[in-house]
This record gives sequence, structure tokens and C-alpha cells, in this order.
Amino acid sequence: MNIDPLPSWNDGAAKSAILDFVGRVTKEGGPDYVPPSERIATFDNDGTLWCEQPFQVQVFFLIDRVKELVAEDPRLKERQPYKALLEHNIKTLAHGKQGLQELFFATHAGMTTEEFDPIARAWFTHAKHPKFGRLFKHCTFQPQVELLGFLRENSFKTFIVSGGGIDFMRAIAEEAYGIPHEQVVGSSGKLRFEASDGGATLMKLSELNSFDDREVKPENIGLHIGRRPILAFGNSDGDLAMLRYCKTGKGARLALLIHHDDDEREVAYDRDFRLSPLIEALDKADDYGITLVSMKNDWKTVFEGE
Amino acid sequence: MNIDPLPSWNDGAAKSAILDFVGRVTKEGGPDYVPPSERIATFDNDGTLWCEQPFQVQVFFLIDRVKELVAEDPRLKERQPYKALLEHNIKTLAHGKQGLQELFFATHAGMTTEEFDPIARAWFTHAKHPKFGRLFKHCTFQPQVELLGFLRENSFKTFIVSGGGIDFMRAIAEEAYGIPHEQVVGSSGKLRFEASDGGATLMKLSELNSFDDREVKPENIGLHIGRRPILAFGNSDGDLAMLRYCKTGKGARLALLIHHDDDEREVAYDRDFRLSPLIEALDKADDYGITLVSMKNDWKTVFEGE
Repeated sequence: MNIDPLPSWNDGAAKSAILDFVGRVTKEGGPDYVPPSERIATFDNDGTLWCEQPFQVQVFFLIDRVKELVAEDPRLKERQPYKALLEHNIKTLAHGKQGLQELFFATHAGMTTEEFDPIARAWFTHAKHPKFGRLFKHCTFQPQVELLGFLRENSFKTFIVSGGGIDFMRAIAEEAYGIPHEQVVGSSGKLRFEASDGGATLMKLSELNSFDDREVKPENIGLHIGRRPILAFGNSDGDLAMLRYCKTGKGARLALLIHHDDDEREVAYDRDFRLSPLIEALDKADDYGITLVSMKNDWKTVFEGE
Repeated sequence: MNIDPLPSWNDGAAKSAILDFVGRVTKEGGPDYVPPSERIATFDNDGTLWCEQPFQVQVFFLIDRVKELVAEDPRLKERQPYKALLEHNIKTLAHGKQGLQELFFATHAGMTTEEFDPIARAWFTHAKHPKFGRLFKHCTFQPQVELLGFLRENSFKTFIVSGGGIDFMRAIAEEAYGIPHEQVVGSSGKLRFEASDGGATLMKLSELNSFDDREVKPENIGLHIGRRPILAFGNSDGDLAMLRYCKTGKGARLALLIHHDDDEREVAYDRDFRLSPLIEALDKADDYGITLVSMKNDWKTVFEGE
């Protein structure tokens, strides 16, 4: 009797494509065999491993951080960018992912990496999603957590390659996905080494190092991983370059794209989600050999523990 | 009967410090216990894991590449920077590590990452060190290869963090040290994602992304690894920031510095090696709690297979 390694996936083309692919690349002596060191799988995070509606999880963190900072020092209410955030709807501010940059630096920089980490971890222990009523750290997609584990059981190395902040994701990736810090690639600010008699630290600066989206994703894969992934998974146009980089390599490849088409269990959206639209990748999926995953049809369960 | 895990290390203070440290951080329930996910060890490469005299291995590769390029197209002889390299002693060109930058781009860029990799691998199959008469890939230090393996047996993750070129080191790190691509951090040029109907590649550009030396080493540790190493090993002033970053963290830490004091089996040098001097780190080792390793006294064997 075989145990289903992906019980939260419904039988169908997407699940078959995954099981077939993993079977082929791990079959020693087979034509598609890939040695373990080359079994690299890269996953986008927001919208691919956990929900990103109505905003990315990190935006909720940012809003809570601004409120905390203002509670500590009410004079901040009159200062930008806090004032704008408190007076306006976040949607007005966020004309695009990069539009949030100033607010990100205000809440994510000006402290050391080791000061930031416990702030993010503490937030994850109590902060809840307003719509789903569950802790943000439990807004992960159960089928994806299963897939990550299944890939690792088959000697894949699993990486996050996301537009999300690298230090923010590292604070939760191990607990939520079993992915260690060094296998998280994301957007990053510059760091400055500071040494004194008291010690040596890395200061998080208010200066962009890398905005890990679109063509920057494969470029950062080149820098951080140094191998072309044989499996890549995304959900928006920001992932298309990574999916193409994966898919156009030699040998067996699997590129997957989640379509958020389930308005009952999650949120149905694609073209109109300004923060991270899905337009070109959806239109070109067929041409590029990308496997579409329908949340509605391919996933038996959406969230962890349902 | 205990088997010595470090047979190429002589008994002495350095070997004891290593065995003691690994014993303490792996002892469950002990005061210095460190969970496996935090057992990060970072090693410089040139002069720490393999020899760097009279030049870094990569400089020999660069010279051979220039000769090959000129053989293919003799007109290059009259063009810079090839002309300078062929007419002058490499020592004249190399006023410092960054002085070699133009020659590096001429030989390491203008091609995709997947075109560069086999060129470097092919070179390692035949290129020999002029003084030691062995393949460069066998110029690794046997005690260090043992130490890397010993650390991994104790659930450490071992990383290279070196001024050497990231793609050049990745071409040999797995075979020479058992270190996979994604655990190699080094100097890097920018990459550009290029997609067409024919496929998608990463082009290596003639533009510096990161020169991984001195304070940039801990900064790149922050970016690539996201954890402070608990063990770090270097051999020059270029490693001092990394050793201090390691050593000033909370809990048990071990920072080690090789002193190349063995003129019989290798080369005795420190302050006067212009490409990568050892001055401040040697003077301050005691103050900073850095453990000195004497190649002459602490290593039973120097090179692999001796």
C-alpha cells in the first residue's frame, strides 16, 4: 500500500505532473536522473507559500510596527512617513511594491540584524490575519508545506526566492516551512559592519541592496544558489523570470504557477491585484510550458490544520 | 578506542581548542549547547583552505585564460589589459587585490554563468602549481579538509566566505571540500537575466557586485547566511572583521587564524604579502581571543595525500 505523499492535493494534472517529475529525476539510471546536489527547488513566498491578501503579511507587520512606534513616541504621528500611513489607507500609499520602500526602511532599518529578529518573531507569536482569523504564521498553504517536505524527502534543497524582506522571512521560514535562513533569498537593504570594544554587529541601513522581483529573482538565484533550479513555483508576473529560468534549463524541469481562483476558501484574484498582478504569466503559461495549479480544483485543503 | 577525528593535526593548543569547542556546542543539556541550525562555520579560502602563494590560484587561472584567449585571437596581444599582463610581471600589475579587477572581468565576464563553469572545471583537471608540482585542486590543506568533514559530522553547516570569485570557487568547492554551490560566498560581478525564444540565461557582466573582503565578509554573511557564525577561520587581515563578528556573538565561539610559518613544507609569510597581508590580525589575535594556528607546529601534514 502506497502512502500518498501529497494528501492535500486533489488528483489531477498538477499533482500528476509533480509526482511524475519527482519520480523521474530521482530514478537512478533513468534518462532524467538528476544527482541530489542539483535538485534545487525555488519557491516564491507571498501568494505561493502563504496568503498575500488583502496585503502581503509583511505589510500587516509594518502597520503594527508603526502603531507601536507611535505609541512609544506620539510625536511620530506628525512625522513622515508615519503620518501618511496613519492618515491614509495603505492602498493609497502602495501604488506598487516599491512604493512601500520608505515605510519599510522606517520600520525595518536603523537597528542591527539581531535586534530586528526578535521583534519579527514576537509579532508572529500573536498577530492574526483579519479575514481568516488565524495567526499569520498559520496562513501557510498546507499543500505547499507538504510539497516542500516531499521534495526534501527526495533530497531536494528547498529555497524561498521572494520579493519579501529577507530578514523578515528568515524569522519565520524555519518554523513555518522547515527552510533554514541560508536558503531564504529576498529583498534586502544594505548592511554595515560596525565594530567597537563592545562587540561587532551588522546595522540594517535605509538603503536598498536588492529588490528581489522579476528578473532580479534569477539574478539573485545566480548569486545566492549558483545553480539553475530544476523546479520553481510562483503565483505572479514577478515570478515569471524565475519560472522561465528554471524551465529553459537542460533536462527535466518543472515550473508551476498557482492561480488564486478560490473565492470561497481564500480570495479569487489575478490581473487586478496591483501589488503583485498575474497577467503575462497566466497568458503565456502554455507557451512557456508552465503547469497551472488551480487552488479551487487542485487543493483539497488550503490552510494548515483545516 | 577513540578514533582521532583530526589525524593531520598535531596535539597542541589549537587542536585542543577545536575538539573542546565542538564537544561543548554539541553536548545536549550542556551550558554551551548550540542547536544544529545555528552551527554555522565560515572559512576563508585562499591561504586558509588551500595555498595562495606566490599568487592566489585564481590568478594562475586568469593568466592561463589570457594566454588561451591570445592564442585564439593574436590581435588581443596588442590590446589592454592583455598587453600589460603579457609584457609585465603579474606582480607589477597586482598592487592590491582590487588592482586585478580589470583583468578578472576580461577573463571571467562577457559569458553566461553556464559557459564559465565548464571553462573553470576543465582548467582544474590539468592545471598544476609551479612550485608544488601538484594539481591546483590538490593544493588544499589536508588538516582543513579533515576539519570541514569533522564539523559536518557534528551537524555544522560549512561555508566558504572568501575574496575569491564566487563562480570560480563554486566550480571546485564541492569536489575539493564537499561544500555545495549555495554555501560558497565570494566576490561577484553583477549578473543580467537575458531571455529570448531560445532560452533564458544569466550573463556575467564586467561590473562589480561585491568585493568580498574585510568588513564586506560579515556583511555578506548577513545577506547570504543570515546567522552569525559560531566558528570562523581565516589567515589574513581581510578575515579579521569576520573573525571578530564570529567571536563577539553570544555563547561559545571559536575564531581561528592560520599563521603561514612553515617555509619547508609551504611558504613562510605574513606582513609582506601585498596581495593579502597578515598584520593587524596577528598583532591583535590575543586581544580579540583569536586562536592562532601555526602551520609548522600544529599541522602534521600540509597538503592532501602527502
